[in-house]
Amino acid sequence: MSVRVGIVGVGNIGEDHAHRLAERTRGAEVAAIADVDAARAEAVARAVGAQACPTDLLVGRDDVDAVVVTTTGAHHEPYVLAAIAARKPVFCEKPLATTVDACQRIVAAEAATGRRLVQVGFMRRFDPDYLAVRRAIADGRIGRPLVVHCVHRNAASGPGLTSASIVLDSAVHEIDQVRWLLGEEVAAARVLAPRPTPRVEPGVQDPMVVVLEMASGAMVLDELFVNAGYGYDVRCEVVGETGAVALPDPGAVVVRKNGHRGRAVPPDWRERFRAAYDAELQAWVDAVAAGQGGTGPTAHDGLAATAVAEACIRALESGQRAPVRLPFAGTSV
Amino acid sequence: MSVRVGIVGVGNIGEDHAHRLAERTRGAEVAAIADVDAARAEAVARAVGAQACPTDLLVGRDDVDAVVVTTTGAHHEPYVLAAIAARKPVFCEKPLATTVDACQRIVAAEAATGRRLVQVGFMRRFDPDYLAVRRAIADGRIGRPLVVHCVHRNAASGPGLTSASIVLDSAVHEIDQVRWLLGEEVAAARVLAPRPTPRVEPGVQDPMVVVLEMASGAMVLDELFVNAGYGYDVRCEVVGETGAVALPDPGAVVVRKNGHRGRAVPPDWRERFRAAYDAELQAWVDAVAAGQGGTGPTAHDGLAATAVAEACIRALESGQRAPVRLPFAGTSV
Amino acid sequence: MSVRVGIVGVGNIGEDHAHRLAERTRGAEVAAIADVDAARAEAVARAVGAQACPTDLLVGRDDVDAVVVTTTGAHHEPYVLAAIAARKPVFCEKPLATTVDACQRIVAAEAATGRRLVQVGFMRRFDPDYLAVRRAIADGRIGRPLVVHCVHRNAASGPGLTSASIVLDSAVHEIDQVRWLLGEEVAAARVLAPRPTPRVEPGVQDPMVVVLEMASGAMVLDELFVNAGYGYDVRCEVVGETGAVALPDPGAVVVRKNGHRGRAVPPDWRERFRAAYDAELQAWVDAVAAGQGGTGPTAHDGLAATAVAEACIRALESGQRAPVRLPFAGTSV
Amino acid sequence: MSVRVGIVGVGNIGEDHAHRLAERTRGAEVAAIADVDAARAEAVARAVGAQACPTDLLVGRDDVDAVVVTTTGAHHEPYVLAAIAARKPVFCEKPLATTVDACQRIVAAEAATGRRLVQVGFMRRFDPDYLAVRRAIADGRIGRPLVVHCVHRNAASGPGLTSASIVLDSAVHEIDQVRWLLGEEVAAARVLAPRPTPRVEPGVQDPMVVVLEMASGAMVLDELFVNAGYGYDVRCEVVGETGAVALPDPGAVVVRKNGHRGRAVPPDWRERFRAAYDAELQAWVDAVAAGQGGTGPTAHDGLAATAVAEACIRALESGQRAPVRLPFAGTSV
Repeated sequence: MSVRVGIVGVGNIGEDHAHRLAERTRGAEVAAIADVDAARAEAVARAVGAQACPTDLLVGRDDVDAVVVTTTGAHHEPYVLAAIAARKPVFCEKPLATTVDACQRIVAAEAATGRRLVQVGFMRRFDPDYLAVRRAIADGRIGRPLVVHCVHRNAASGPGLTSASIVLDSAVHEIDQVRWLLGEEVAAARVLAPRPTPRVEPGVQDPMVVVLEMASGAMVLDELFVNAGYGYDVRCEVVGETGAVALPDPGAVVVRKNGHRGRAVPPDWRERFRAAYDAELQAWVDAVAAGQGGTGPTAHDGLAATAVAEACIRALESGQRAPVRLPFAGTSV
Repeated sequence: MSVRVGIVGVGNIGEDHAHRLAERTRGAEVAAIADVDAARAEAVARAVGAQACPTDLLVGRDDVDAVVVTTTGAHHEPYVLAAIAARKPVFCEKPLATTVDACQRIVAAEAATGRRLVQVGFMRRFDPDYLAVRRAIADGRIGRPLVVHCVHRNAASGPGLTSASIVLDSAVHEIDQVRWLLGEEVAAARVLAPRPTPRVEPGVQDPMVVVLEMASGAMVLDELFVNAGYGYDVRCEVVGETGAVALPDPGAVVVRKNGHRGRAVPPDWRERFRAAYDAELQAWVDAVAAGQGGTGPTAHDGLAATAVAEACIRALESGQRAPVRLPFAGTSV
Repeated sequence: MSVRVGIVGVGNIGEDHAHRLAERTRGAEVAAIADVDAARAEAVARAVGAQACPTDLLVGRDDVDAVVVTTTGAHHEPYVLAAIAARKPVFCEKPLATTVDACQRIVAAEAATGRRLVQVGFMRRFDPDYLAVRRAIADGRIGRPLVVHCVHRNAASGPGLTSASIVLDSAVHEIDQVRWLLGEEVAAARVLAPRPTPRVEPGVQDPMVVVLEMASGAMVLDELFVNAGYGYDVRCEVVGETGAVALPDPGAVVVRKNGHRGRAVPPDWRERFRAAYDAELQAWVDAVAAGQGGTGPTAHDGLAATAVAEACIRALESGQRAPVRLPFAGTSV
Repeated sequence: MSVRVGIVGVGNIGEDHAHRLAERTRGAEVAAIADVDAARAEAVARAVGAQACPTDLLVGRDDVDAVVVTTTGAHHEPYVLAAIAARKPVFCEKPLATTVDACQRIVAAEAATGRRLVQVGFMRRFDPDYLAVRRAIADGRIGRPLVVHCVHRNAASGPGLTSASIVLDSAVHEIDQVRWLLGEEVAAARVLAPRPTPRVEPGVQDPMVVVLEMASGAMVLDELFVNAGYGYDVRCEVVGETGAVALPDPGAVVVRKNGHRGRAVPPDWRERFRAAYDAELQAWVDAVAAGQGGTGPTAHDGLAATAVAEACIRALESGQRAPVRLPFAGTSV
């Protein structure tokens, strides 16, 4: 009766999801795990009571009802397409794919099946605080949104950081989030470039400020700083015509000691968004068990986010405002 | 493979747990539901896909592997004893029983089986914030505790409120909590009696201040106010020799509007402790599935808490300090 | 045209007031300074452009229009009486005197002159936050008060600390404060005695919890801990029939660094109450310049506070509830 | 011995300063008041015990030692120049003047006297919180600054609002502030234009986002929204290479009531910056009394701020990045 999940890619987030599905998600079990690093697949599979298998065999296994794709973003497409071809529901981490073309191929393939099969891993849509911000806007408590301030800081980046990866891996969260919070598309992007931190390689723009113009004219300012040093810190304030609503700082216990009153800042996204990830995968498993192929962010949302990210990268390279080239008409949020 | 749970008593918390076990707990299903109000049992059973049955038949059912007792406190004992007699794990809401004698009978019955079968519903031990307070103390960050401030406020009480019920239903949470946080027994109790709110019947002491002396000499001040009007608000600060640690206020989104900056206060315990209840019952189900009969607060903890509550009630009636009559030797926390 | 002030006693607070009057108070100048330590008087006098003189000559000087008494509490009386005898306005630090008898002699002497001449240094009445708490109560925003929680922590005490001095020097602040906030007298006191911190001499009760019963039945819980280690921390929450109002934590800048988000806690009362002290002495000087002899807390308030402090000391010694013996009839707040 | 002050212009801030100097500033008295509205000059003069006089006679009066210029920004220049010509110290509200040319004439005139005579009303430099932010940067606690986030919101604007006036009257505060906090000049400006609030006349850009590039490459994002509706709200966070420091929210008392926990937001700058204005004018009067002609922000600072504001206005009109044309070489902060 459980949904038997196969996971391809068990880096940080993949391993995290493997334990989540095997230990904390109702109605799921992890059947198989694949990774380009076979030893890693083996180790994680052993830890969660699953079988390891080659990456190209995972989707087709009989004991795999649904697929989680947690490879690096540039390698999502083939596994997502294989799952669609096999008519198996697929949960794909963000970004759906790193190019608009790849996203379009996924959207088209899913559409051809006549049913929903894809859910994209924009977990903030499942976070209680983000949901409360959205509700406050929808209830009209702040009037129509005019300006949105976002902050997205990590303590330190991993190896291979590029300016484009900051957009595709980090900013993509805020891109989806503001589409979802405001219920409208992004029309254009700019990237402002402060002096970079000396902690990054020359040529990497960290921090950067992404400026998004929404279709309504509302403006989003998104500071991305993946080597901020002190911890993981994401914030969002939406300023409307009559008021403003903001995420709270995470509510850690308050310690008074040695002339200071302080709290811990979460070290990373794992801790900050643990409840959101739990809710996200539970919702996916529940939807799959109910035959719905997924819930929340769609392949179309993944496509829209990558289209905006592409505009950000063009804006970063040109130093100019870049219109978003949405490969579809109208608003889809 | 799932743990099949029978629930006896589906008032507020019982109904809440029924949905939790049926919808959000991994490895559990709700098989049967009983209540003195048969129509209510029927309705809740239907909502969660279980069968309704008479209260006296629930524990013995073949399709019930484990029992949740969520009747009113005065009616816990027979069901808990029945479960023990049937060698079925039993999760019993707090207080374990409303008299020390009843608690002792439960402890003795469980002991006679030679194994653990009882877990008591002190859910705060599973709340991330309370766990962080405990860690801060255990880590030595504030030195040895000297004073603990607790606040326990509800918006409004239900019908039938008495001073004793405030102790047994509300203060019992802080009683268990300080035993667990400080790792020691309560030695004596006093109750201070401010002018009562006009919202209660004459003779009911609401608010009241329970003062607990711990075995080490540390002192606990616990304000209980179950008709505080504005919402549900529980707090705890532990003051040690070199610092202090406190629970945070719950982290709701911040709305700025009409000259004010504000947040919602949780309306009740359901919302405030939802994550704690989820974790508590998940841990119970996991323990039961692993053949352990429960985890966290034991029947012994339930007995100790009721013994302290009894001292509080004596103190309230006499206006004097009342020593706790622990029906066992030594510290058991 | 300036009020020429003479200051007797230039320990910590006296020296602070000397600079305040000489540098930040409009319409004041410091004419003369006396201290039992003549060298200290000389040094402070030089720093503020005043003349040093013997303590017994200060009040009578022709160039002294008004007197500030900042000797230790046990030595306030003779200087206050001398000022009254000379018909000179006198600002006396708290407590007005350390015995009820001494306070009564001051009240009687002032009354005999037919005019107001005394202001007592309960500076919290001039603090913007305490004033806002009082306004919230007076506006009916929380209904009638039922419970008041106070905390009064210092980083460390000076030499010569006794349990009685904690009451007379520290608790006396909350005693006056709750009389003023609630507009009623204190009827009785108790003192609860947690295990003392090892930082104090044997026999000194630090921390202690003073419990005050107000005439209306409202109850005050006041934790005093003068060796709390981490800093200076005073708090107050008033819980009423329909809501609660609390002082904010002092609003220091927020630093995020090394996995923490923190703020400085004020090291002492100087920093925490600087604005209150400034306002208090400005109000006194303005009143004196206007021929009013003082404003805010009267000799009568000083007497009432010492009467309550005396009850606290009796309660501490007896371990029992001690009624306050107010040497006057009715409420005077 | 008091500094006798003449005030020209008693609109909102001028009247506020009149009372401040007459009632709360040590060593000052208000001798004379002028305004284009003679009746208003008369009324304010009466309220503070000064004489009213025509605007063109105020600076030259024998009983005026020092001048406060609080006319509207476009009318500062003649009074400041007159004061300089008369060798009288002059405190001029911000902006020093509304054009760079006018500012240069003032700087040149002051320079020709061979001494300092001008102080500009950038009061944030005297606010304890801003001072603490500056100290945290200077102490190296956050590393070298990379990004600065500012918010500057008013409840509602007065009549005659234009996009340029938002820059000159509001943004000019952040312009001076970041020069002072970071100790460097602004190199270029951009203005981002979200959809305006419907509360303003067509063509007025409210809210707007001013982006400043500092000489070091650090970037400032300043949201200005003078019709934000809910209150007065200014914020600042400086993000450095290793940490971040932010202003606290103002520390108003916390009221819990009706399911909410809230605080008042200051209605306007008067309340938010009262302590800063008091300190600013006290420092000016003290400096004047000491023969120094002023302290803190100089005419040169006023000139630099207006030069940046001019770049912002060019940027707003062109939609492009506008380099700041500093009419002097090097950094002067």
